[in-house]
Amino acid sequence: MTIRKIIKMALSTQPYKGARDFYPEDKRIQNYMFDVMRRVAQSYGYEEYDAPILESTDLYLAKGSQEIVQEQTYTFEDRGGRSVTVRTEMTPSVSRMVAGRRQELGYPLRWFSIPNLWRYERMQRGRLREFWQLNVDIFGVPGVAAEHEIICLAADLMKAYGAKSGMYSIRINSRALMDYIMSEYLGLDTVQASMLARLIDRIRKMSEAEFAVQLDSILSPSQREEGYAQQIKDLLQVRRPQDLPEAAQKTEAYLQLAELMDLLEESKVTNAVFDITIMRGFDYYTGIVFEVMDTSPENNRAMFGGGRYDGLVGQFGVDPVPTVGFGMGDVTLQNFLETHELLPKLPPETELYIAMIGDIYADVSKLAQRLREEEVNVAIDTSGRKLDKQIKSALKKQIRYVLIVGENELTEDRYKLKDLVTGTEEVHSLDRIVSIVLAN
Amino acid sequence: MTIRKIIKMALSTQPYKGARDFYPEDKRIQNYMFDVMRRVAQSYGYEEYDAPILESTDLYLAKGSQEIVQEQTYTFEDRGGRSVTVRTEMTPSVSRMVAGRRQELGYPLRWFSIPNLWRYERMQRGRLREFWQLNVDIFGVPGVAAEHEIICLAADLMKAYGAKSGMYSIRINSRALMDYIMSEYLGLDTVQASMLARLIDRIRKMSEAEFAVQLDSILSPSQREEGYAQQIKDLLQVRRPQDLPEAAQKTEAYLQLAELMDLLEESKVTNAVFDITIMRGFDYYTGIVFEVMDTSPENNRAMFGGGRYDGLVGQFGVDPVPTVGFGMGDVTLQNFLETHELLPKLPPETELYIAMIGDIYADVSKLAQRLREEEVNVAIDTSGRKLDKQIKSALKKQIRYVLIVGENELTEDRYKLKDLVTGTEEVHSLDRIVSIVLAN
Repeated sequence: MTIRKIIKMALSTQPYKGARDFYPEDKRIQNYMFDVMRRVAQSYGYEEYDAPILESTDLYLAKGSQEIVQEQTYTFEDRGGRSVTVRTEMTPSVSRMVAGRRQELGYPLRWFSIPNLWRYERMQRGRLREFWQLNVDIFGVPGVAAEHEIICLAADLMKAYGAKSGMYSIRINSRALMDYIMSEYLGLDTVQASMLARLIDRIRKMSEAEFAVQLDSILSPSQREEGYAQQIKDLLQVRRPQDLPEAAQKTEAYLQLAELMDLLEESKVTNAVFDITIMRGFDYYTGIVFEVMDTSPENNRAMFGGGRYDGLVGQFGVDPVPTVGFGMGDVTLQNFLETHELLPKLPPETELYIAMIGDIYADVSKLAQRLREEEVNVAIDTSGRKLDKQIKSALKKQIRYVLIVGENELTEDRYKLKDLVTGTEEVHSLDRIVSIVLAN
Repeated sequence: MTIRKIIKMALSTQPYKGARDFYPEDKRIQNYMFDVMRRVAQSYGYEEYDAPILESTDLYLAKGSQEIVQEQTYTFEDRGGRSVTVRTEMTPSVSRMVAGRRQELGYPLRWFSIPNLWRYERMQRGRLREFWQLNVDIFGVPGVAAEHEIICLAADLMKAYGAKSGMYSIRINSRALMDYIMSEYLGLDTVQASMLARLIDRIRKMSEAEFAVQLDSILSPSQREEGYAQQIKDLLQVRRPQDLPEAAQKTEAYLQLAELMDLLEESKVTNAVFDITIMRGFDYYTGIVFEVMDTSPENNRAMFGGGRYDGLVGQFGVDPVPTVGFGMGDVTLQNFLETHELLPKLPPETELYIAMIGDIYADVSKLAQRLREEEVNVAIDTSGRKLDKQIKSALKKQIRYVLIVGENELTEDRYKLKDLVTGTEEVHSLDRIVSIVLAN
């Protein structure tokens, strides 16, 4: 057996593990989801940008995400010996681009993108190795108007998909406020504060008992004796900012959070709530953070989130730029839309299928061209099969109208139009056919 | 100096070499080019699909393109020890997808995609490491109706970009016909035929003298003596199929070529010409091949091309599917559009910029929301700068209309609209403002 034959036998029709083939019916769903993203982002004045899917590995190391680079990226050396990484998130790339034109760009700068991202991880529901993510960021606004706008945009996006406000909640916290509470109010040291933040970040993924054990392991013997654990657990029960410790209510971080909650209430974002357990995984957040959670029991998890990260653009040696943004993944979004039955029916863009009787391709091709000039999307069945088979093809392709064309029809320039939804057949002029097809 | 600082100092704002950042003004051009591709492909009944940018390396080896895999791909091992390749072209992926659902799909099957592709190569005009490529393929049609449709679609695409037929030519040949001529008519052996095909493929990149030397090196001493070189050179001067050797005119390949040229003439594709030197690089073409050439002196090169490849789907262990397709790269296309000054002015999607006087963000945000409900794309200047600076921002962002809003305007619900194109300022109700802005 030759090597060629061995390779041939082994050749699989499956895509790479954790990635998806988008057959036309899948691609229509993706296009629908992306079109809504574009429309809503543009309605807030955001402009689309893009960056390469391969970046220098340095870009990810610089952010202090060595863990992710070492465990979850596709990182390799190119043929010139340079280490490159398939992008895992868009934030480093967009920070690089803004830094590159720091002086020329006009602020507030509003940008969005829908990049293709890859993470090497174990597959589970809502997680794949390949995914897309809407990234929306506003640069140059230090006040909470930025957070307010970004959260309103996220809420409008959900509304544009048909989501009712009861289907999800927007949970808001402040990293700056939590830093104050952990270090100044509780008196934890930096290491403990960081460990506690990570523990809280995972609180919804563990039992109460498990949480208690891990919490104890963070505290010193004297802290345990002084009842720190209970104090922290009590704190995590707080549901309204005004129930936070008084000292915390005097901080700048608290005032910003309160202002944001007021603004959201004024804007009638009724499902925005304070949630002291929202921490967000990435280290780069510096202020307000938020997560959008699916409230359905079967999908009860964070769908997407974001927050303020004022330090990233400055990492490129330019003056820092205050930034607020969020990233919304396509896989979790599609799960949400499917769970809540919000995905519309999406027929193919082809509007008319020409069934051809006889050896008349040259003339049918000219007829199709006339229809295309009238902006009808038209496909020709060139198979030469019997008429009923051609009509079955149109049905299979979910195309509503079939134009039946033989030599007589061409001579008279009048054609039989079959509507596969109503089952009717009528003979019309081409003009009339165009109006019928385009009206639907 | 800490390692962190060293990394920070080294952090570049440049994208990876050979790849591009798409700032909003660049992304608008890309979106324009892609939108036209989608519109024209859909007008012919083609449906969009996609596949992952990472594929198993086997997929590229199987096609017999070891050279490309070894020299021009980004190939690496994933964390599970599997060899993966960043896709260099879409044809192997689409063949894999069709093979995967060989029985369920309805033929003729019309698919298109605009994938992001990567090749590791030296940079030159029109070539980058990262590029996009429209791929249009029709599956299941053995006759030249497929080639005819694909070439008409390519011509319509050029027309949709505003190209006149004199700006480019469509050069057509048949690999099957050339195979016949080289083996049966000239009597070359397989190795010689393959070498000659590659030499002809590069004919436009070398001088006449250089071509003669290389041609001689392919021929045997006796062939050289018998005047084969001159015979081949004469053959390459043929400009019409009917001037080909009589024996060649009796082949099936010739009849198909002639039928295709007739069909194209009937369809008024006036710039389609027979060109015996068109070979196409890839080994997988089996019949008609074509290339679209820019005719401008400064850009005189192949812009894109395609042809028939009936053998690829069958490589996955299913029955073969006749296929015709082409791939059009974004970089060469953009060069063409720029050379011929065909790129339209593309303003940003933001239609209205709100300049805010005073601390009135909460109310302005509600006003913006009302405008968005009327489908106006609106951005708010939250900078708190003086009015003239805010208006300058709108100018810089190329937004035509500025709405000037202070407390009085909010109370009266009437606003000053400044048109930055005409320079006029007028006070209107919100309804009137919506109609003015949306009318432009």
